[in-house]
Amino acid sequence: MVRTRIDVGRVRAAREMIDPVFLDTPLYRCEALEPELGCAVSVKLETANPVRSFKGRGTEVVASLLAGPGAGPGAGSRAAVCASAGNLGQALAWSGRRRGLDVTVVASRSAPAAKLDRIRALGARLELVDGDFEAARERAADVARHDGVRLVEDSLDIETCEGAATIGLELADAAPAFDAVLIALGGGALATGVGQVLKTLAPGVEVICVQPLGAPAMTLSWRRGRVVTTGPTDTIADGVAGRRPIPVVLDDLLQVADDAVLVREESITAGMRLLLDHAGLVVEPSAALGVAAVLEDRDRFAGRHVATIVCGGNVDMDAYRRWVGIAPGIASGHGA
Amino acid sequence: MVRTRIDVGRVRAAREMIDPVFLDTPLYRCEALEPELGCAVSVKLETANPVRSFKGRGTEVVASLLAGPGAGPGAGSRAAVCASAGNLGQALAWSGRRRGLDVTVVASRSAPAAKLDRIRALGARLELVDGDFEAARERAADVARHDGVRLVEDSLDIETCEGAATIGLELADAAPAFDAVLIALGGGALATGVGQVLKTLAPGVEVICVQPLGAPAMTLSWRRGRVVTTGPTDTIADGVAGRRPIPVVLDDLLQVADDAVLVREESITAGMRLLLDHAGLVVEPSAALGVAAVLEDRDRFAGRHVATIVCGGNVDMDAYRRWVGIAPGIASGHGA
Repeated sequence: MVRTRIDVGRVRAAREMIDPVFLDTPLYRCEALEPELGCAVSVKLETANPVRSFKGRGTEVVASLLAGPGAGPGAGSRAAVCASAGNLGQALAWSGRRRGLDVTVVASRSAPAAKLDRIRALGARLELVDGDFEAARERAADVARHDGVRLVEDSLDIETCEGAATIGLELADAAPAFDAVLIALGGGALATGVGQVLKTLAPGVEVICVQPLGAPAMTLSWRRGRVVTTGPTDTIADGVAGRRPIPVVLDDLLQVADDAVLVREESITAGMRLLLDHAGLVVEPSAALGVAAVLEDRDRFAGRHVATIVCGGNVDMDAYRRWVGIAPGIASGHGA
Repeated sequence: MVRTRIDVGRVRAAREMIDPVFLDTPLYRCEALEPELGCAVSVKLETANPVRSFKGRGTEVVASLLAGPGAGPGAGSRAAVCASAGNLGQALAWSGRRRGLDVTVVASRSAPAAKLDRIRALGARLELVDGDFEAARERAADVARHDGVRLVEDSLDIETCEGAATIGLELADAAPAFDAVLIALGGGALATGVGQVLKTLAPGVEVICVQPLGAPAMTLSWRRGRVVTTGPTDTIADGVAGRRPIPVVLDDLLQVADDAVLVREESITAGMRLLLDHAGLVVEPSAALGVAAVLEDRDRFAGRHVATIVCGGNVDMDAYRRWVGIAPGIASGHGA
């Protein structure tokens, strides 16, 4: 029996706190991808919602509890701050706005402008810091201490894991159909949440985490069984680019992941291009990690049925066009 | 009381025959679109399924009945033929394959190659004809007569309307939220099906059909209250490009549509571009008709909340890149 911080009963309870717009997302075979990938592929699509990523599942749980009848008195108890590469901030802003919470998001100045614009548009206070995501994490903690408001820490806070884990409930319902689930690995909320639910409800399904070679901290930590921090990350997959794994999250990941693999940047862009050209899906780099993993190891997956969680679709369109637009169609059709 | 061929009780029964992969599709606000459109916009997303269009809802009903215990004896009763601009053919091939039906699709040689490739990949027999969709319709009828198999006629066959109408049930559940629904108008199954359900369950919602100026037959017919046929169509919206409205479908449309509007080609491509850039959605031209209608008449919709059905996402990527790719990002980022 796998024992982590995540409890399937609590995940079911978390589901009840989440706005249905984030639940029961599409899960379907994409046969048009299969000739290129050499295996059966299903996608779990987490981009067709108001914040275009799975993060709303977790922030709904956080915000429900903050705004609920059990919340403490005083203004501080109706306020929250988080560090974000963009998606968590958007989601927390969305969940907070509809409950009248005061939300502050701290992000790196280098986060995608599209994500930052949406955070502002959703009414959150946005504070930009120099440096990377880890610098934003430190600053968010300072703000929380100084203002006495709730610090929402992705992957560390159990609500973010339980929210993400509700994807696992939906996958488990369909699990007899597939052999492996490919999960983007960043802070670990998605991987540990979904992993725990699958290990409990569908233990035959292989849980494979995927991270960019340019941001390998959690994967290296999983492989060595202890926290490994790294220097600056170097990947377009901003959503998973952390350098300092959280020890308790690593402990959980060690329980639920069957494997953790690293993929090259060119495989990530190739995955994004495949998802666009053959599945009609606009995805951010982190959401193409699963497809990238298959591209790099076709033999491993040949003849099997994999499900991949398309976890987000927030991209700067200029960057996206560069990543996927360089195809035969462009040059010939440019002026048409 | 609106009386058409479509009965809400039968639509509810149809829902039970449809594979859940086509049901309960995402419906959500796209706030990022709203500054450009000047009104609140929700999308009903019918592209995140194995055939990337809403047509699976109808073909599931058709194929369930053909394969069911009530089906007649003989090989002919387990076979079907349809004419298709591409989406119906894909959907019928998908629904037929999983029930062991023998499916033939007749399409115009000028239909998008991406759609034709998928029809073949799904195991249907594909017959190409010169001429347009109307030529394909005639040929499909010949095949049905000659081979003694079921002819599936989109919009005329009540199952195709009832299947499409299940979208109306899902919209009606959320209907208090919006003032108008924008529906692509082609043969009329989608518009009459969804329209009838809304008029029954959410009569306060305005039902607005949208067709390209280059394929206006049904809209002109609706305006004049009698069937108007046209010469050759001239639109990139292949999915709605018919020339000969079906009289009984027009009768239904006259009952349920509050308005039918025509939009220019440049509004359709502008709509596709907006949906890509601000909502991350790859849509085929027919699926951008609703957004195009708002773009052409912002005053009409100002301050209101509209829902638009994103009815399909099957595009030839080369053509799609031409339609949406000519943006500032391309030129500067081409070699990056």
